[in-house]
Amino acid sequence: MSIRPHRGFTILLTGLAAAGKTTIASRLHQLLATEYGRSVTVLDGDVVREMLSSGLTFSRADRELNIRRIGYVAGEVIRHGGICIAAAIAPFRGARADAAARVRQFGRYYEIHVATPLAECERRDPKGLYRQARLGEVRNLPGIDAPYEVPEQSDLRIDTRLLGVEEETRQILQLAAGDGLL
Amino acid sequence: MSIRPHRGFTILLTGLAAAGKTTIASRLHQLLATEYGRSVTVLDGDVVREMLSSGLTFSRADRELNIRRIGYVAGEVIRHGGICIAAAIAPFRGARADAAARVRQFGRYYEIHVATPLAECERRDPKGLYRQARLGEVRNLPGIDAPYEVPEQSDLRIDTRLLGVEEETRQILQLAAGDGLL
Repeated sequence: MSIRPHRGFTILLTGLAAAGKTTIASRLHQLLATEYGRSVTVLDGDVVREMLSSGLTFSRADRELNIRRIGYVAGEVIRHGGICIAAAIAPFRGARADAAARVRQFGRYYEIHVATPLAECERRDPKGLYRQARLGEVRNLPGIDAPYEVPEQSDLRIDTRLLGVEEETRQILQLAAGDGLL
Repeated sequence: MSIRPHRGFTILLTGLAAAGKTTIASRLHQLLATEYGRSVTVLDGDVVREMLSSGLTFSRADRELNIRRIGYVAGEVIRHGGICIAAAIAPFRGARADAAARVRQFGRYYEIHVATPLAECERRDPKGLYRQARLGEVRNLPGIDAPYEVPEQSDLRIDTRLLGVEEETRQILQLAAGDGLL
């Protein structure tokens, strides 16, 4: 019979484009792999769009579908005792709830709101998305011409103006440690 | 650090519609879970189409994309020590090879050709697909009006006219056991 030393869990980092989700996801991945020796699946926006959701647009329906797929894969990862870190705008409350429900069939789900304000995201704008959206060259960008439904019951709210990535990841890992998952 | 008691692997069951892939996948799942205490992800055609590939058609490009997504998820499952059983027509050699390459980054990939002949598949026809294809109501059905590229180097070839499901699954599990994975 199986001896399973680890229980899996999922961390969803949700927030506006350029809020800092990928930076946090990368550091979490690194810490979990090297310090804790855990196996980690990172579902970052670009990977997901390439591997799972090529062909989907940025319409409401397709964004919801994108999050549903993330929830499905995250659930399967947890099923095997793995950790899934998903970094996605995930702007719709209902779709986040659906993904959470899927994940919770197999283990713990942490919703982290990377709540960097729009003005700061727009100032950073590393991919030029906001500039293009203001020019009308990009459409359906949450915060500009599409909604971002703020999480009402996130496990943690992080404003990346106020903390550095080390402190941010420490707070997130503390949640999992507090639940005996690390 | 991690103690990982299990190494994951993937079993792809490829073959014509109604060849018997799902029957084998279900029994494999049951045996691996109950007899071996292993955690298993089953990527059966219908689940995949619902959870990963809704919106895709049955064109060549979309079928290839479907298999690529299966390969991606299978790789992530193995990364965490899980077992992935994929049952899909997977008619294209190139797409199967791509999925295999992805999976092999993380562990062993077994390609099982469920080689029940077309005439027998058409006789069974549990979903009426062949009947509809002959009437022109369904298009792009491998073996009828779309290709099925026979695996040239499968790990095992099964003709479900000749064996029962118990013997079929025994032969498949023997492969994994022989590699020390069970």
